Amino acid sequence: MPSGLVISAHAADFVWRSGGAIALHAREGWDMHVVCLSLGARGESAKLWRQEGMTLDRVNAERTDETRRAADVLGANLRLLGHLDYPMRITEDTILQLADTIREVAPSFILSHAPGDPWNFDHELTSRVAQEAQIISQAKGHNPQVPSAKPVPILMYEPHQPENSGWKPDLYLNIDPVFDLKRKAFECMDAQEWLWDYHTRVALQRGNQAWLNSGTRITHAEAYQTLFPRVVSSFPAI
Amino acid sequence: MPSGLVISAHAADFVWRSGGAIALHAREGWDMHVVCLSLGARGESAKLWRQEGMTLDRVNAERTDETRRAADVLGANLRLLGHLDYPMRITEDTILQLADTIREVAPSFILSHAPGDPWNFDHELTSRVAQEAQIISQAKGHNPQVPSAKPVPILMYEPHQPENSGWKPDLYLNIDPVFDLKRKAFECMDAQEWLWDYHTRVALQRGNQAWLNSGTRITHAEAYQTLFPRVVSSFPAI
Amino acid sequence: MPSGLVISAHAADFVWRSGGAIALHAREGWDMHVVCLSLGARGESAKLWRQEGMTLDRVNAERTDETRRAADVLGANLRLLGHLDYPMRITEDTILQLADTIREVAPSFILSHAPGDPWNFDHELTSRVAQEAQIISQAKGHNPQVPSAKPVPILMYEPHQPENSGWKPDLYLNIDPVFDLKRKAFECMDAQEWLWDYHTRVALQRGNQAWLNSGTRITHAEAYQTLFPRVVSSFPAI
Amino acid sequence: MPSGLVISAHAADFVWRSGGAIALHAREGWDMHVVCLSLGARGESAKLWRQEGMTLDRVNAERTDETRRAADVLGANLRLLGHLDYPMRITEDTILQLADTIREVAPSFILSHAPGDPWNFDHELTSRVAQEAQIISQAKGHNPQVPSAKPVPILMYEPHQPENSGWKPDLYLNIDPVFDLKRKAFECMDAQEWLWDYHTRVALQRGNQAWLNSGTRITHAEAYQTLFPRVVSSFPAI
Amino acid sequence: MPSGLVISAHAADFVWRSGGAIALHAREGWDMHVVCLSLGARGESAKLWRQEGMTLDRVNAERTDETRRAADVLGANLRLLGHLDYPMRITEDTILQLADTIREVAPSFILSHAPGDPWNFDHELTSRVAQEAQIISQAKGHNPQVPSAKPVPILMYEPHQPENSGWKPDLYLNIDPVFDLKRKAFECMDAQEWLWDYHTRVALQRGNQAWLNSGTRITHAEAYQTLFPRVVSSFPAI
Amino acid sequence: MPSGLVISAHAADFVWRSGGAIALHAREGWDMHVVCLSLGARGESAKLWRQEGMTLDRVNAERTDETRRAADVLGANLRLLGHLDYPMRITEDTILQLADTIREVAPSFILSHAPGDPWNFDHELTSRVAQEAQIISQAKGHNPQVPSAKPVPILMYEPHQPENSGWKPDLYLNIDPVFDLKRKAFECMDAQEWLWDYHTRVALQRGNQAWLNSGTRITHAEAYQTLFPRVVSSFPAI
Repeated sequence: MPSGLVISAHAADFVWRSGGAIALHAREGWDMHVVCLSLGARGESAKLWRQEGMTLDRVNAERTDETRRAADVLGANLRLLGHLDYPMRITEDTILQLADTIREVAPSFILSHAPGDPWNFDHELTSRVAQEAQIISQAKGHNPQVPSAKPVPILMYEPHQPENSGWKPDLYLNIDPVFDLKRKAFECMDAQEWLWDYHTRVALQRGNQAWLNSGTRITHAEAYQTLFPRVVSSFPAI
Repeated sequence: MPSGLVISAHAADFVWRSGGAIALHAREGWDMHVVCLSLGARGESAKLWRQEGMTLDRVNAERTDETRRAADVLGANLRLLGHLDYPMRITEDTILQLADTIREVAPSFILSHAPGDPWNFDHELTSRVAQEAQIISQAKGHNPQVPSAKPVPILMYEPHQPENSGWKPDLYLNIDPVFDLKRKAFECMDAQEWLWDYHTRVALQRGNQAWLNSGTRITHAEAYQTLFPRVVSSFPAI
Repeated sequence: MPSGLVISAHAADFVWRSGGAIALHAREGWDMHVVCLSLGARGESAKLWRQEGMTLDRVNAERTDETRRAADVLGANLRLLGHLDYPMRITEDTILQLADTIREVAPSFILSHAPGDPWNFDHELTSRVAQEAQIISQAKGHNPQVPSAKPVPILMYEPHQPENSGWKPDLYLNIDPVFDLKRKAFECMDAQEWLWDYHTRVALQRGNQAWLNSGTRITHAEAYQTLFPRVVSSFPAI
Repeated sequence: MPSGLVISAHAADFVWRSGGAIALHAREGWDMHVVCLSLGARGESAKLWRQEGMTLDRVNAERTDETRRAADVLGANLRLLGHLDYPMRITEDTILQLADTIREVAPSFILSHAPGDPWNFDHELTSRVAQEAQIISQAKGHNPQVPSAKPVPILMYEPHQPENSGWKPDLYLNIDPVFDLKRKAFECMDAQEWLWDYHTRVALQRGNQAWLNSGTRITHAEAYQTLFPRVVSSFPAI
Repeated sequence: MPSGLVISAHAADFVWRSGGAIALHAREGWDMHVVCLSLGARGESAKLWRQEGMTLDRVNAERTDETRRAADVLGANLRLLGHLDYPMRITEDTILQLADTIREVAPSFILSHAPGDPWNFDHELTSRVAQEAQIISQAKGHNPQVPSAKPVPILMYEPHQPENSGWKPDLYLNIDPVFDLKRKAFECMDAQEWLWDYHTRVALQRGNQAWLNSGTRITHAEAYQTLFPRVVSSFPAI
Repeated sequence: MPSGLVISAHAADFVWRSGGAIALHAREGWDMHVVCLSLGARGESAKLWRQEGMTLDRVNAERTDETRRAADVLGANLRLLGHLDYPMRITEDTILQLADTIREVAPSFILSHAPGDPWNFDHELTSRVAQEAQIISQAKGHNPQVPSAKPVPILMYEPHQPENSGWKPDLYLNIDPVFDLKRKAFECMDAQEWLWDYHTRVALQRGNQAWLNSGTRITHAEAYQTLFPRVVSSFPAI
């Protein structure tokens, strides 16, 4: 079966931004892998920090639990790399490790962040890290004893304030068949409850736009920006 | 069978820039339609004008003949609208007529020029005209007795100096199965013989880039920029 | 009292895109003026055209009625210029007339469309027309017997697919105090019922972003892109 | 001797924006030609319109006189085409006439406006007109009895608010040898006295930047954006 | 009283680029804080290095003295962080320290460099550092025992060659009431005397543009580009 | 004699992308210097790695030999800095060393990579490194005992997929007099034989565009994007 790989800055990004794609392909039998560089404990767990006497360890434990449950709902294999956030710093070792993950998983696509997000430099860094790992995965002289990867399409999911982040969607994915799963995964993320309805509405707005662009009635969609050109053997018939 | 529509500023643009797409789909049985707004007699027939005593009528006759032969080679139905070039001016009537053509042909895609070309304002205008015709074809109140069209993807083929025309390819089409036909169509265009080898090399360079982006050996390709987002039900497996 | 002016391509654009700003300022006693270049009868009244035996006259009558009711709900003075849509064409006369309207109304701001919208060339044209009218309103030699206008800020409201229309919001307006009125105005626009919930969600998403950018709890907002730089005497204290 | 051509929207644009280039080359014996599409009577003669009982005829007479004197100071041949401004509208005839002017003058460069100026649509139109005329001048089938022009570099001079007009200078011209003439030409333009010092400071700021980019002490400069790539046989030695 | 914070790459940047904003708000009783990452000793003290036998220590001493005097003139509290310049390198520690400064100062705005400056990578880095510090200051899990900051507007002052640095002003500040102080602060910066008149002219050019955009006579202004959208409760009346 | 400096990410970049400029100026007696940050052993030597039992040392030896031969053919002095590639990491020390090289060589131009290349982050880094070294070379306080450099034009050669790398050529160099040498240098690079014909075609396409832009028959050209504005004393006559 084919496989897909998601490289997520914080624990919950993959849920809000690409949970539909994960569930959709997992349901069809794909091997879906999610790597979270961090848990988002410092910068994306505000609700937890409002509790009296909260500590980083407790936030980490809570976020780990939430994330595992969400990944299970979506049907993804989860790897938590345990880096810090706000600020995130990633060394060359982690990038090489991700390159090896790409070789091992041999994904048909990588989902990750877009390069611009002036509100969230961890997202920008993760975008860069995912891209560099993909480049290195193809270098025949990197770990030459392991076969190098083929070029992999990188699809960049939606930032929170897309117009001011330079992100332009060129690909809408109909997620109607799995939106209930995506919503269920939202509800695993207790620390960010304020985003459940926000991202439900994102799915509805993208669904409307997908309908307008296709002429096909779609209710929920996810939007992506494609990093590299795609290559085809013929154009699809409508 | 499905159909495709090309809206070309001058007689030969469709040959150089999308001849592969035309031949490829025609060969598979698609109805391929080409509309040429002009013959390019004034601005793109320099070789003819170098002949002693040349007149506009003779250039038009020669270009009409070349264009018909090229369309035949590629397997396209050809409509010559007979507008002038350098400068081209298009009235609302022609745009409405093109909107009706889109309804009639019901293409799965429209191929035309990209919006920017500082060396060729006829190309810019044709891009605009094709886009406006597509918009109107969907308006239920335009010729309400005829069913309105569905949204149609517009693929913008390559300008001559792409980097300074703001054009960015996001779609490569493998045209290896038909490159011999494309080259044969080139050779119908006597008035622009200097472009035969130029566009053969374009096909080879785009082929190389298609290979790099896909990991699949491709020799000849055409490159396009997609105007609207596309909508899919799942991502393709590699 | 101060005044504001909205220049809207079609009958309903001002409702979806700037109904909050209109109601908010009208409620505070401002003179709010709306000019609709067209009724959107051909291209933005799909629901009406689906009725058996519909005619342009009947669509116009229905849209006129809807629009008047919505303007009343919002508290705006309405001028319907009666141009056609899909395609819209505007002559110099209308632009000069709008320049005179700007002089007469002396608005503190003009709300209109943004310059880019590849799905809707009437919106692009209206943006251009509004901008040119504002420029001419300042020319001392245009109708020199009437005092020329001061420079007026132009705020460009949201297109339907903002990321691919080149629109970037730099100004969020809290419309919580009037969102019920805005929704009530939505419900006057029977011909576009499918947009009621869509634009309710737009208001909620923009409200969330306004909250994030201000640190102040806001539920509903409208977003705008400012055309010209603003000039201040000091920066606001938080 | 070589020649240069300036295509100016209003009477004074060529003075403020390219007076140095005109004087510099005229002084070296070049034939310098200036075409003014309009006198700027309606939109750029505010000081005159503040006089009691002013009429369009009197503004035109005054502006014609000023412009002729400025052109004389700079050493330019002047053609006043007499179009209106604010708004300017240019028909195909004028563009063809300009194409013929380009063939006749055979300039080594064309100086004109840049394509973007949200404060001044006459400037945007003139930029477009100049570009289209240059394109047509090369079309062998336009007036085929006259030899077609060679490609001519178009250098776009500075708009008033450059950063928000999308203009980026890539070429600085040292105008120290003629700045006194440029200033003298400023002082012919009585109707826009408020710009004399403004454009003197522009020359000084551009001079400073020219110094920084070259390492050569320059006091006054003009800045231009080049439309087309230039072609060289070797790079210059410092 | 409210407060403001300036994060400046080199000792003198805050003077040239935002001295007016500092003096204006200080005069109104605001607490104005300036942090200089470096003294600019290596790259922005050319006049000092032209003296015989100059050493880094002497340049540092001179620049420290100049900077303190300028800050006093403007009414700012000054912190000199003592990093090196040309090249500047900033570690995570300094960024976290700046995040804490933002929490402590609780500024209503942050003034700093814009992200692009191909002539000055220290400026680019400082822009990035200021933005990341602001992001971290809001992260509840960073130093959770200290209350997190609210979102703070970042206003990016003018680079030296703005058009080629991608900077676009959207906000002009009238500094007429304090321009004499700003000029006095210029004159403290002996090491960069060549910039006194340059930045006086910048203030005059920006003043002219502020006048054009507001219709209000303004002589001296500073221009800024706003990083994040602003949020308002109503639009201002003219 | 004047000199030029090329700063190349991998061993072969200078050959494909600027071999014509190197040979052309070397032939005229210029001192042409090439610095290769790396040999491209890991990421750009695929053909070698396909050999059984290949090791990094053997790849390095082969690439060193190829590169020396190509530099000899072109007439360049070669410095191999020996950094790794895929990923490349460059410390401050190397940048300072390059700044000193710029002072020592005193080049009339620097040729290097453009800032964007989503397929090749080593190219992006090299562009940044070259720019920062050039900035530091001008700082009087860097190694103050050595005279600082003058500003040097940076010309950015062509990436492999230019339209999607944000690169726009503004300068074409006619390399017809030396194309045979450039091709001979290609043929030294055995490890990348697949690029010989590709870059031959690049030279032909750029030659065609150079011809179109100049009106002068040119067969082979190289294209460059200029980083900084150039400064001139007059415009060239055609």
